[in-house]
Amino acid sequence: MDLEVFFAGTAGSVPTGRRGMPALLVRRGGERILFDCGEGTQRQLVSSVGLADLDALFLTHFHLDHWLGIPGLLKTFALRDRDRPLTINGPPGLSNLMGMLRPIVGKLPYDVKLVELEAGEPMRRDGYAIAPFRVEHRSTRAFGYALVEDERPGAFDPVEAQRLGVTPGPDFGRLQRGEPVDGVVPGQVMGPPRAGRKIVLSGDTAPSDAVRVAAHEADLLVHEATFLEEETERAADTGHSTARQAATIAHEANVRMLALVHLSTRYFARDVRDEACATFPNTVIPRDFDAVELPFPERGEPRLIRWDEREPEPVETG
Amino acid sequence: MDLEVFFAGTAGSVPTGRRGMPALLVRRGGERILFDCGEGTQRQLVSSVGLADLDALFLTHFHLDHWLGIPGLLKTFALRDRDRPLTINGPPGLSNLMGMLRPIVGKLPYDVKLVELEAGEPMRRDGYAIAPFRVEHRSTRAFGYALVEDERPGAFDPVEAQRLGVTPGPDFGRLQRGEPVDGVVPGQVMGPPRAGRKIVLSGDTAPSDAVRVAAHEADLLVHEATFLEEETERAADTGHSTARQAATIAHEANVRMLALVHLSTRYFARDVRDEACATFPNTVIPRDFDAVELPFPERGEPRLIRWDEREPEPVETG
Repeated sequence: MDLEVFFAGTAGSVPTGRRGMPALLVRRGGERILFDCGEGTQRQLVSSVGLADLDALFLTHFHLDHWLGIPGLLKTFALRDRDRPLTINGPPGLSNLMGMLRPIVGKLPYDVKLVELEAGEPMRRDGYAIAPFRVEHRSTRAFGYALVEDERPGAFDPVEAQRLGVTPGPDFGRLQRGEPVDGVVPGQVMGPPRAGRKIVLSGDTAPSDAVRVAAHEADLLVHEATFLEEETERAADTGHSTARQAATIAHEANVRMLALVHLSTRYFARDVRDEACATFPNTVIPRDFDAVELPFPERGEPRLIRWDEREPEPVETG
Repeated sequence: MDLEVFFAGTAGSVPTGRRGMPALLVRRGGERILFDCGEGTQRQLVSSVGLADLDALFLTHFHLDHWLGIPGLLKTFALRDRDRPLTINGPPGLSNLMGMLRPIVGKLPYDVKLVELEAGEPMRRDGYAIAPFRVEHRSTRAFGYALVEDERPGAFDPVEAQRLGVTPGPDFGRLQRGEPVDGVVPGQVMGPPRAGRKIVLSGDTAPSDAVRVAAHEADLLVHEATFLEEETERAADTGHSTARQAATIAHEANVRMLALVHLSTRYFARDVRDEACATFPNTVIPRDFDAVELPFPERGEPRLIRWDEREPEPVETG
């Protein structure tokens, strides 16, 4: 099953020519889940991978730069005659925000379901869970999210299965699905269950123990890096992190890859990367429309795919 | 004095990869006046001519696609420590809209002054006026705007002035400013006053007499063209115009140039242009970031400047 994080907008609170407002699209199999939706997100998607009918939207917090793209997105779905309901999830306060937006958005031809999440109460989805955790962003109720896939069955050992007298073919499939075959039980020919993949998104936050814990051995940590070390104090005052702080969390959590977002216009991406790499070498600074592909661990390492190196995809319709 | 219309966003109700949401920036001398402010307008400006400290904002009507960029714009000005007040002008109902936006935008370090205009009551500004007129866009109170410069003094005739005994130099300047010199009065050496330039913006509208009247002999008419002739009925149902209808208005109003905007994703720009040019040949279809430059009539014709042919400008600061 394919899994990737598509960086639809990587700026901080102000857009630049190159970086749009915060939005991350997780693509898993056929599912499309958007995390945050800053101003212009619909256009970022239209301009790149296409504006798919999202399966769900998650907000990290309610600062304007993280949700101002919602009314336009909802409206565009309406103009396209969407009829599937859309669920918007976020910290407590979500209903209040959406109440403010209701008169702006007006009537929609599909249902918008609001779910106020509680930190530590994962939302189950088909084959994975999305677990919100509380981060430290000034006085707001701000969440980070961990997307954690279910365990996968262990690796199947075909040599051992044949040694035990099982014939290659449909019986191999039965064993892999957990059924015994001719007295041979799956435990004899399958390795221990394998962990699913894990993606952790910090949202906007000062360095946070909750991120460190949630990100333990994650395949990918997407962390904000609004400042450089020279402005550590300002980062603390505004509830943000420096590149070095993000890298330290990545190092302590032993993640496989760190991607930094929410970059300020004041720095060069190169300097942000250099500061982070000194502490955590496998750090990438995605540009808008880049993606990180996450193969199953036995098939390879997480990989940053630059937008301009990407194969063209079939155009999405609808 | 330089005068141009900069096309910051030329899409209709949905953005495309190439066309952003509606926004037109009029640049006159050092002034920057924005007409409409769809989602993503601040980024369109940042990505092109720079996000200047606007002098004023005018809204044509209150459909979401024409104003959703306001909260982000106001917020970005705040982050840049703007302290100059900003005036937002629009049809009656503006205060109501901005009332809805107030809790979203929060506190700003500068004043936002709201002016609800009345059709037919021009707003005087330094050297020109902006006159709102009522257009036909379904049941909404929708305005078009005419920007009309004050009359300029007539052409000065230096040969005649010398014949009457005036010495070239400061005395020529006095005559041109309307002061008599040594018994010679300005009327003897100056031609009749010359009309200022006129730009007319239709906003969203079905074919409208008010546009035709306002646009009489305008230097530039920027008109919406949401549909082609094959969808004339749909245009009528939705309160929009076809390319041919816009061209007919331009022809009847005897404007110098017609620029079509608010293009639908359903058509090719080429087809829109071909339909309009059959009726009004001097029609242009600006792309985002193109501009129409309007020299004084004696110095040349209005001219479309493609963004990719434009000279780089000095970076705007602040």
